[in-house]
Amino acid sequence: MPNLEQQLEIIKRGSIEVINEAELLNKLEKSQKSGKPLIVKLGADPTAPDLHLGHSVVLRKLRDFQDLGHEVHFLIGDFTSRIGDPTGKTKTRPPLTEKEIQDNAKTYAEQVFKILDRSKTKIRFNSEWCSQLSGVDMIKLAGQMNVARMLEREDFKNRYTSGQSISIHEFLYPLIQGYDSVAMKADVEIGGQDQRFNLLVGRDLQKNAGMLQQVLVLLPLLEGLDGKDKMSKSLGNAIGITENPKDMFGKIMSIPDTLMEKYFEYLTRVPSMTYKKLIASSPRDAKIMLAKEIVTLFHSEESGIKEEKNFVNQFSKRNFDQAEAEELFAGTDRPLSKALVEWKLCSSASEAKRLLQQGGCKLIHGEEIVTLKEDASTSDLKVGQLLKVGKKKLFRLK
Amino acid sequence: MPNLEQQLEIIKRGSIEVINEAELLNKLEKSQKSGKPLIVKLGADPTAPDLHLGHSVVLRKLRDFQDLGHEVHFLIGDFTSRIGDPTGKTKTRPPLTEKEIQDNAKTYAEQVFKILDRSKTKIRFNSEWCSQLSGVDMIKLAGQMNVARMLEREDFKNRYTSGQSISIHEFLYPLIQGYDSVAMKADVEIGGQDQRFNLLVGRDLQKNAGMLQQVLVLLPLLEGLDGKDKMSKSLGNAIGITENPKDMFGKIMSIPDTLMEKYFEYLTRVPSMTYKKLIASSPRDAKIMLAKEIVTLFHSEESGIKEEKNFVNQFSKRNFDQAEAEELFAGTDRPLSKALVEWKLCSSASEAKRLLQQGGCKLIHGEEIVTLKEDASTSDLKVGQLLKVGKKKLFRLK
Repeated sequence: MPNLEQQLEIIKRGSIEVINEAELLNKLEKSQKSGKPLIVKLGADPTAPDLHLGHSVVLRKLRDFQDLGHEVHFLIGDFTSRIGDPTGKTKTRPPLTEKEIQDNAKTYAEQVFKILDRSKTKIRFNSEWCSQLSGVDMIKLAGQMNVARMLEREDFKNRYTSGQSISIHEFLYPLIQGYDSVAMKADVEIGGQDQRFNLLVGRDLQKNAGMLQQVLVLLPLLEGLDGKDKMSKSLGNAIGITENPKDMFGKIMSIPDTLMEKYFEYLTRVPSMTYKKLIASSPRDAKIMLAKEIVTLFHSEESGIKEEKNFVNQFSKRNFDQAEAEELFAGTDRPLSKALVEWKLCSSASEAKRLLQQGGCKLIHGEEIVTLKEDASTSDLKVGQLLKVGKKKLFRLK
Repeated sequence: MPNLEQQLEIIKRGSIEVINEAELLNKLEKSQKSGKPLIVKLGADPTAPDLHLGHSVVLRKLRDFQDLGHEVHFLIGDFTSRIGDPTGKTKTRPPLTEKEIQDNAKTYAEQVFKILDRSKTKIRFNSEWCSQLSGVDMIKLAGQMNVARMLEREDFKNRYTSGQSISIHEFLYPLIQGYDSVAMKADVEIGGQDQRFNLLVGRDLQKNAGMLQQVLVLLPLLEGLDGKDKMSKSLGNAIGITENPKDMFGKIMSIPDTLMEKYFEYLTRVPSMTYKKLIASSPRDAKIMLAKEIVTLFHSEESGIKEEKNFVNQFSKRNFDQAEAEELFAGTDRPLSKALVEWKLCSSASEAKRLLQQGGCKLIHGEEIVTLKEDASTSDLKVGQLLKVGKKKLFRLK
């Protein structure tokens, strides 16, 4: 077992903020002496059971705690999802039924156990204690927080100042989340940095309840495939934890080079010296290594090796040369978007432009693959190169 | 029984706003046809059972409804006072006990039946239905109002903008008050104009519950003895409903003349033509009439007559002439505040000024009593007049 300082280092790796380190050291020490594992909480919303690589950042941190001997309490926040939309405004958010919640919980469990140690994980449901709360309890809970502080929460602040409606029950939800920490006697809570406010509420409520406050370990939010926004299923820039090895490998290969360091740091355990050197010398090899690591992590070493081979074969020069590509004559210099319509590969110039904007046209010459931009011209196409249009069509330029 | 239009007029008399008249007419008509009285709600806080004349404005309006055949549901809001201060910050606001609530309710009842018709009044306690509310019910209630609208409420707005803390449970209280209207199936709710926001919440919640909305009858807030602030026990400018006839009469006699019209309008049923004429011709007689009316209302006709006599005797010229007043010589022209010190009636000029500011020096000449102002001079005092200093000392000027 690593000593206390080493344990702290392991927990801090890749985290944005620990609130606070002194308390954490104290808790680690007590746990070591008493042999009683710490209760490490992670809350999850049962309405969206599809986990993606963004979630895996926190799951990996939970795994760190498990490897240090602690216990993860994976909390399914079913209480509020049983209520549905109390404003009655959205017909699209009906309360979840008992069966839906159980099904989603099962789906969750299947996914988290790709990373977590099953023997050191408890799945819990907050309806266990929240459904016992009376109206008076809810008033007392509400009495423990003030309006101004709640309106400092980033999303509330933005909505309030921009005139978007905030329903008052939304102010109760962070309090319920905080109350979970009281009821669970959580020693540590893990969350994305966007959860900072909510997790702090848990500390406040524990303090008011005369308990030792939970330590917060805040983790970075992973950008999605576009390299801009936070990874999110609804933004279409996510890589699902349960995606098949081929898609997972392909999607990692499509991330911007600038994201590679973060993905290595937060999703793998490749030492930073190793990946930094490789990124500097050969970005493409580094990305292949990253994709292989991640597929190995979520599937198997075998899958990682297989997908690496497939990818290299598919895109290597030799294989493209041997591919049964049709021949294509580029012709006089004109916008590629125009030519794509002439060649009947797109039905209109706007469709062709969209295809180019989305990076759907690639030019393969030698080892390199160049994604053609919207303003590409037929003069960019050289005899002997391969032109890939969309996912399937491949042409040899003559 | 007056016809519908006349009923509406009676209800509107002295009210600031009716929300809204068409609905009220509709309710009155239905009630008349079905013979089923309307339920008219008034909410009261059991922590402060001392009623004053300000409260009697709404009580008189309830009495109007009773005289038209309707039923008053006098609601004691005991639910929240059983909770005490959920923030745990004020040790001075412990929860009320069952006994305290019952005692206060009894005190209330004694007071309101000075005006209300006992046979058409039901005393209710909102803990009857509110203590049945679960945590989920409270969330659903909170879901029916939004933060921005709550922050438009005058007092919340002021506190929020001035940086004073608003605890989140305070946002729940107007909702609970509104829920009372749902639970009581209130047809009408009466309140001071400062209750407008809270009463409107009741309308919203009834609408959401698929009920006919309660009609609101908003009444003016009565200024207190100082003629400036709203009458309030804590400001010391109130006349209590249970004060003895003598004090009640005396206090009414001390209000500024500018308040007389309002007091006549809101507290008595003297026709406006009558009191307006009297105020114009003899303010002092008008004020005596007002005081007599109010004592009659809260005590008896006998008491009214008796206090009028006492007052007139005490302050009439004849009696003052016969009073055993010391003689006093005003002397050369100088500030009265200075002279009062010389005469050893005040120990310092600042004490003398304070006495004058508070209206403690009066000059009695003939039928008139003039309150001397801070800048009064000895030259204002004429031989033969009486000077009253404080409550007891009387001098005849020579």
